[in-house]
Amino acid sequence: MSAAIVVGLDVGGSTTRVTVVSVHGEWLGAGRAGGGNPTTHGAERAAEQLRAALTEALSSVDPGDARAGVIGLAGAGRLLADPAGRAAFDAVWRAVGLRCPYTVLGDALVAYASGTPAPDGTVLIAGTGAIAAAVRAMTLDRVADGHGWLLGDAGSGFWLGREAVRHTLAGLDAGGGPTPLAALVLTRLLGSTAIAPRRRDTVDAVVQTVTRRPPIELAALAPLVLTAADDGDPAATAILADAARHLVTTAARIRAADETGPVVLGGGLLTGHTPLADAVTAALRDRWPQAPLLVAGDGAAAAAWLAARSLPGVDADALHHRLLPQSGA
Amino acid sequence: MSAAIVVGLDVGGSTTRVTVVSVHGEWLGAGRAGGGNPTTHGAERAAEQLRAALTEALSSVDPGDARAGVIGLAGAGRLLADPAGRAAFDAVWRAVGLRCPYTVLGDALVAYASGTPAPDGTVLIAGTGAIAAAVRAMTLDRVADGHGWLLGDAGSGFWLGREAVRHTLAGLDAGGGPTPLAALVLTRLLGSTAIAPRRRDTVDAVVQTVTRRPPIELAALAPLVLTAADDGDPAATAILADAARHLVTTAARIRAADETGPVVLGGGLLTGHTPLADAVTAALRDRWPQAPLLVAGDGAAAAAWLAARSLPGVDADALHHRLLPQSGA
Repeated sequence: MSAAIVVGLDVGGSTTRVTVVSVHGEWLGAGRAGGGNPTTHGAERAAEQLRAALTEALSSVDPGDARAGVIGLAGAGRLLADPAGRAAFDAVWRAVGLRCPYTVLGDALVAYASGTPAPDGTVLIAGTGAIAAAVRAMTLDRVADGHGWLLGDAGSGFWLGREAVRHTLAGLDAGGGPTPLAALVLTRLLGSTAIAPRRRDTVDAVVQTVTRRPPIELAALAPLVLTAADDGDPAATAILADAARHLVTTAARIRAADETGPVVLGGGLLTGHTPLADAVTAALRDRWPQAPLLVAGDGAAAAAWLAARSLPGVDADALHHRLLPQSGA
Repeated sequence: MSAAIVVGLDVGGSTTRVTVVSVHGEWLGAGRAGGGNPTTHGAERAAEQLRAALTEALSSVDPGDARAGVIGLAGAGRLLADPAGRAAFDAVWRAVGLRCPYTVLGDALVAYASGTPAPDGTVLIAGTGAIAAAVRAMTLDRVADGHGWLLGDAGSGFWLGREAVRHTLAGLDAGGGPTPLAALVLTRLLGSTAIAPRRRDTVDAVVQTVTRRPPIELAALAPLVLTAADDGDPAATAILADAARHLVTTAARIRAADETGPVVLGGGLLTGHTPLADAVTAALRDRWPQAPLLVAGDGAAAAAWLAARSLPGVDADALHHRLLPQSGA
């Protein structure tokens, strides 16, 4: 008889990843496909991507051995509230031969679980957007920010990109040459650091270049702030310090001053070795000196772990250690 | 023979106003029509409004006596760059019997001139948007901000409205009851101050209510901040203090620390007796103690004054005093 297996899915905007492991932690399969978020892509296309990734991941195992599955998904609540979306996921699950139940969980919880098996703690995520959440008994409790680019996401990639442009425009208004950050922004947006004889023409060109596109594309400028800060530009460093302050303020809305559980950092801006991650880590250590600081890891493996942890006979901590070796921030 | 007359137009987003005066300052006619900005309304509809307001204003005079005209208009540069828009304005000018030349000037310059005849100074405007400009020899020189809601307009009505919602969301995230400002925002957006048992449902409802509409409509919430501040709410007062800091920082980008020319305050948020106007006035006095602080007045009269001031035999200061009695901030 084969060992019991579990299936974990990390469904993102651009990639769907599946991990299949035994409840003892043996890696048995992996699959990958395009973005499978039904909110972004529509239920039908999302289901196709899920099916492709699941089929690949299950090719060397008997899907009938699966005991549990977890699908990690941004906007999990919206999927659960949408009968059509839920039905599309159900149909794919059966079509690939899975007979076990599955649970849809928010990507913030999966990010948390990818960093630690501790049931109580905090997750702080900064990518295109920004959100913090308290985790209690390994379920999402209170949430802060994640309000979207117009009203929130303070300290996110969008926020950094917008601040980079605001800094550039303020410098153009005030006169003088561009800072290193402004030079990067001008080059990216206008193809050159040349300032028009009538400075307002360059201001107008910057504003028009940005406002012709969807606002969220400002997030594409965030790496310029990281680059300029790495090169020692004080303006970029000040923007990152502001972003770190915003992110820690967001976390403080849902984490008491005396909490000691771990803080898991997630999202592209905090999981790489970026100057923003450094600034946030320092600010968190300052505010919660007791808290272990951890970095989010493999989302699909974390989803598989979340599926396995409640099954009979599973040592959740040992399995986490095997699937997701912790890395400190 | 009749006295020489001048024609001033203040063309806004929702109103077009015309003033006809003699070069000695006698009021000879006034007209009013709907919004006549060709950028917002299209050249044809804009020209119709101009014609209606001009016809009314010129009904008791001989248009052949007009010696000069000024049209004050947001985005004057765009009109001048657009042959079709300029041709439509030319055609209306001739159709109502005017034979004199006219000049199209930015509304920021007209706002400045409505507050003072001094050739050099600064104008600071906060309405839906926010902008500051240096005036040299009664022409617009350097400009700061006016970058639009996505990238700038710091301290504007849009900015105040967005901060009011951000304050409300931060309070919902953090727990506890709503502040007076948050109660006003919740009532306006959701019809009640009730917070759902799952607070995130109220957060989502606020975010969705705002993001379903054009972002600029956030400016409609600015009066709630003024009301709450008038009622002593510290959160609203803090937001206004931030707005005042932003506006004065904007002015400082185009006004040197040792300048002594007047500062004219314009726009709906700074011309009424609002707590924001008080905060900005205090911050300006602090930064430029020498500067006379004035409040923008009648735009159509200022346009008429700008038309008259260069004509032979006109005492520009005396005419300004007669048409636009100055009011200190």
